[in-house]
Amino acid sequence: MRRLSLASAVATSLFGAVALVSAALAQEDPLPSWNDGATKEAIIKFVETVTDESNPDYVPPAERIATFDNDGTLWVEQPMYVQLAFALDEVRRMAPDHPEWKEKEPFKSVLAGDLEGIAASGKKGLAEIMGATHAGMSNAEFTRTASDWITTAKNPKTGRLNTEDIYQPMLEVIDYLRANEFDVYIVSGGGIEFMRPWTETTYGIPPENVVGSSAKMKYELTDDGPVLMREAEIAFVDDGPGKPVGIQSHIGKRPIAAFGNSDGDYQMLEWTTKGPGRTLGMIVHHDDAEREFAYDRDSHFGKLDKAMDAAPAEHWVLISMKDDWARVFPEQ
Amino acid sequence: MRRLSLASAVATSLFGAVALVSAALAQEDPLPSWNDGATKEAIIKFVETVTDESNPDYVPPAERIATFDNDGTLWVEQPMYVQLAFALDEVRRMAPDHPEWKEKEPFKSVLAGDLEGIAASGKKGLAEIMGATHAGMSNAEFTRTASDWITTAKNPKTGRLNTEDIYQPMLEVIDYLRANEFDVYIVSGGGIEFMRPWTETTYGIPPENVVGSSAKMKYELTDDGPVLMREAEIAFVDDGPGKPVGIQSHIGKRPIAAFGNSDGDYQMLEWTTKGPGRTLGMIVHHDDAEREFAYDRDSHFGKLDKAMDAAPAEHWVLISMKDDWARVFPEQ
Repeated sequence: MRRLSLASAVATSLFGAVALVSAALAQEDPLPSWNDGATKEAIIKFVETVTDESNPDYVPPAERIATFDNDGTLWVEQPMYVQLAFALDEVRRMAPDHPEWKEKEPFKSVLAGDLEGIAASGKKGLAEIMGATHAGMSNAEFTRTASDWITTAKNPKTGRLNTEDIYQPMLEVIDYLRANEFDVYIVSGGGIEFMRPWTETTYGIPPENVVGSSAKMKYELTDDGPVLMREAEIAFVDDGPGKPVGIQSHIGKRPIAAFGNSDGDYQMLEWTTKGPGRTLGMIVHHDDAEREFAYDRDSHFGKLDKAMDAAPAEHWVLISMKDDWARVFPEQ
Repeated sequence: MRRLSLASAVATSLFGAVALVSAALAQEDPLPSWNDGATKEAIIKFVETVTDESNPDYVPPAERIATFDNDGTLWVEQPMYVQLAFALDEVRRMAPDHPEWKEKEPFKSVLAGDLEGIAASGKKGLAEIMGATHAGMSNAEFTRTASDWITTAKNPKTGRLNTEDIYQPMLEVIDYLRANEFDVYIVSGGGIEFMRPWTETTYGIPPENVVGSSAKMKYELTDDGPVLMREAEIAFVDDGPGKPVGIQSHIGKRPIAAFGNSDGDYQMLEWTTKGPGRTLGMIVHHDDAEREFAYDRDSHFGKLDKAMDAAPAEHWVLISMKDDWARVFPEQ
C-alpha cells in the first residue's frame, strides 16, 4: 500500500498545484492599470455577464462586437489631431515643388507656422490642405508616406512618438475583450487609410477592423500596373451620425460595447447602448492636466459637451483619466 | 520478455494505425466535386505553394485574402439575378398599398409579368423599382423582408430554393481555402444588405466578410429608438472598377486569389493577379446547358466577353462547368 499511497500523494499534490495555478490565472487582474472602483467594475461585470452562458444576457462570440474611437480614446489628440499634424508636415515636405504656396493661403500660414492663420482659412482652407496632402496620388503611395511619417512623428507637447502616446488602460480593455472572443474595431473620424498602416502594430487591430473617413478612390491601369488613385473628394465622413452608418457598412452587426471621448461618438454610443440585451457605453473624460490634458466642453479637438450631458440618463460610464487610471501611458 | 514484446507489438500497431489515419487525412481530396485535371490542379498547387513556409512564394496567413463574386460564381444568376426577382416580388407584395402602380410604368409591367415591358423602361425604370423596394424603410426592416423572402424563394427554371442553387465545387474551394487559413470574402455587384442575411448559413461567410453595392443610409432617432434609414440614392456600386475600391475599403489588403464569372469581375481579377507574388485568378465559365445554363458573350446577366478574351494573356484559369465539375449542386 505504501507505493500506492505515495503515488496518490504525488497525484494529489500535482492536482493541488494545477488547481492553484488555474485559480491564480483565473484571478489575474485583466486591467492592472485601472484603479479599483465602479468604472473598472463596470467593464469586468459587463464582460463576465455577456460571456456567461447561464446568464440571460449571454451573447454568442460572433455577436460580441466592440467599437473604439481613436483620437482621444486610444491615443492623444492634443494639441491637435495627429492626422492634421501629418497634413501640415506634408505641406512643408511638398513645398519645394510648390513655390506658389509661399503667397497662397492656407499654405502660406502653414509654412509660416501660423496656426491662427490656418484656423482663419476655415473649412475651405482645411479642405485645400487635405486635398493637397491626401489626394492626387495612388493609395499605395499615400500608405507609404503615412507609414514613413508615423515612424518618427512625435507629439510636440509630450515629446513621445505618437504611436507611444497611447493609453495603456485602453490597450488592456482591447486585450481583455479579445481574450473574451470579442471582435474589436476602430471606428474613427480619422482617415481609414491614414490609420491602417500602424493600427496592427500599435493596438493589435488589423486593417480589416479599421473603419474611418475616406476619400473617393478610382481604379486605374497604369504602365506600372493597376492603382487606386485618391481623389480630392470625400467618399464618407465617419463621424457623429456617420459612425453607425460606417459600422453597419463595414461590420454588418450592431456593437454591444462602444468607447469614445467626444460628441463625435454620441451616435455610436447611442446606436450601441439602445440595442437589445446588455450593452456597455463608455466615455474617456480628459480630466488629468498633470499626466495628460484636461479638456471637454470648450476644446477645439475632441469637444465633449452633449455626450457628457446625456451620459447619466443613457447610462454611459464616464472614465475619469485622473481617478480611474493608475497609469496613463505604456512603459517605454 | 514476452510481455514486453507484446506491449511493443501493440505500440507498433497502434503507431501504424495512427500513421495510416494521418496519411489518409492528409491525402483526402479537398475538392471531391472537381474532376481531376489542370483546373483542379491549379487550385491545389496554388494553395500548397502559398502555404509552404519553405517556398519563396509563401504568404503568411494574415495576407491570405480570397475574394469571390456571388451571382454566377457561387449561385445561379439565370434566368435573372436573384435580387431582381426579389425586387419584382416586392413590387407585387407592396402593390395593394400603391393602386397608382396599375397604370404607372415600370410597375404596370411588373404587375403584368411583362419582362419586355420592364426591360423597355431601361435604367430609369430599374432605378424606380429598386427605389420602391430597397429604400424608404429602415435597414433592419429591409433585412427582415429579405430574410423572410429568401427562405422560400425558388429559381423558376431549376425549381430549387435559391439558397440551394449554389455550386458545390465552389463551396469546396471556400472550405479548402479557409482550412488553409485564408480569409474569404464575397465581393459582389449585388446589394451588401441583401446578401448578408443568408451568406453565413449558405456559404459560411459572415456579414463582415461581405462586400457589395450599397444604398445611402441615414442615422435617425425615432420614438422606437435609433434606426438606419435606407435612402433612394446609391452610395457605392461594387462592380467592375468598383470592386478593387470596395475591396480596399472593406479589407484594406490586396487579395491573392479571386474568383469571378463575368466582365464585372475583370478589374477584381486584374487587381488581384497583377499584385506581387504568386496569385490565382479564376473564371467560372457557364458552358453546361444540361446541368445548369450555357451563356457568355451575349447574356443579359453575367456577360462574359472581355474577361474571356483577356484570360490567356492574364493567366486567368477558365473553369469549365461541363468538364471540370463532377457535380454542380449540393446533395439535397
